[in-house]
Amino acid sequence: MRPERKTKASREKVYIYGKHALEEALASTPHIIKKVFLSREAADKELKALLEKHAIPSVPLATNKGKEMVGRDASHQGVIAIMDPSALLVSFEDFITKLDTTKNPAIAILGEIHDPHNVGAIIRSAAAFGLSAVLIPEHHQAGVTGVVVKSSAGMAFRIPLVSIGNVNTTIKVLKEKGFWTYGLSMDGKRVLGIEKFDTPTAFVIGNEGAGIREKTLLACDVAISIPMNPRTESLNAAVSAAVVFYEWSKKHPEAL
Amino acid sequence: MRPERKTKASREKVYIYGKHALEEALASTPHIIKKVFLSREAADKELKALLEKHAIPSVPLATNKGKEMVGRDASHQGVIAIMDPSALLVSFEDFITKLDTTKNPAIAILGEIHDPHNVGAIIRSAAAFGLSAVLIPEHHQAGVTGVVVKSSAGMAFRIPLVSIGNVNTTIKVLKEKGFWTYGLSMDGKRVLGIEKFDTPTAFVIGNEGAGIREKTLLACDVAISIPMNPRTESLNAAVSAAVVFYEWSKKHPEAL
Repeated sequence: MRPERKTKASREKVYIYGKHALEEALASTPHIIKKVFLSREAADKELKALLEKHAIPSVPLATNKGKEMVGRDASHQGVIAIMDPSALLVSFEDFITKLDTTKNPAIAILGEIHDPHNVGAIIRSAAAFGLSAVLIPEHHQAGVTGVVVKSSAGMAFRIPLVSIGNVNTTIKVLKEKGFWTYGLSMDGKRVLGIEKFDTPTAFVIGNEGAGIREKTLLACDVAISIPMNPRTESLNAAVSAAVVFYEWSKKHPEAL
Repeated sequence: MRPERKTKASREKVYIYGKHALEEALASTPHIIKKVFLSREAADKELKALLEKHAIPSVPLATNKGKEMVGRDASHQGVIAIMDPSALLVSFEDFITKLDTTKNPAIAILGEIHDPHNVGAIIRSAAAFGLSAVLIPEHHQAGVTGVVVKSSAGMAFRIPLVSIGNVNTTIKVLKEKGFWTYGLSMDGKRVLGIEKFDTPTAFVIGNEGAGIREKTLLACDVAISIPMNPRTESLNAAVSAAVVFYEWSKKHPEAL
């Protein structure tokens, strides 16, 4: 899917480096690459043609300039690109219109996750366990930044990241589309492991400290909890999400 | 189990604060508390008697001094304690001698996990999913620090943390004790979800970047992998660990 560019989101400069990383980004999400710095050695015909095809400007990378940009220890191989991570976001309308719900896909909805490392880790796990997208609210939520992209271990390029407004409104729309919506909650009466997940499925993951909002939980079809030892009060948000995605993937080997 | 004190480990000063947190630490691991600062209001008879019982010195907490120690936003309620996180470690000999293996317990072994946040998250998940201990090598591995304790969300006080020397030697001893040892590896031929875990079980979790060491993997009985989408190269170390612990806990509801 070719995502639409966001114009409202704040534009942050983030570097990606190395030929392999650039080629990967060009293959999946070329529109996020704003400019590429190339050393004389790295500027081969093939790469230059690829950049021209996507109308991405390239400029020479001066000797030693690379270390200044990405740090002494980064093995950039003469290839450094400036990307706009917020451009990874696609619109909900675009996403939901194109989504094939006949195969009972699963999606994750972030509900006020504040730590960008957690956002990145959730994106990484969602991609690993075959989910179809991660929905990210515009407000009260860590946006898609360089830290998120880095914590996702490159998965932010591989799984659609969908910008949404209000979580509860989105849940309503998803229900109309036939989604069964699960709110992750310590007090969820339904426990993970029994569910068949034989409909399109949405998982709402709440805030690290406060958990999922009460109104959001009420908007969901089911509150689901992960069985755990009573000595524990909760799990890390990214860990809970991964365990739930894993359990979903066990019922959907075709998604792997 | 009353853990033995470590003398070799470096002693780092870490504050814990709030009456509830202190009482919790006193209930499970009083020996890690080195000194307690108490405001006039917080110094009730009950708490003072408890500190005396454990021979922990207490000194008055001067007005405004608390904010200086733990920060403006920390709700310390006039109770601040200095703890030694490395004192949480118990010796392997002590642990393994006292462990009841008839109930087929599970333990985690950290294999060169470098990020203290990951160490803390793994301790938290191990406690949540009913594991019996987390084994932590003395070298090439993040030690038990304040960041680890904080990332564990207090679980570092609730689950035994066991100091070990060489990982491979420890695996050998565990095998002799009847443990079945699993090395988590992307290339593991046995996949998670099929295992019955009907013996004492040890999970070895490898380094965040490089994964588990080849020699360590060879020392394990089984290399186990988590089924995932081929677009993904790996999972976060703490996430992999949690998913494996969760799957073990499903086969061991009695541990929860």
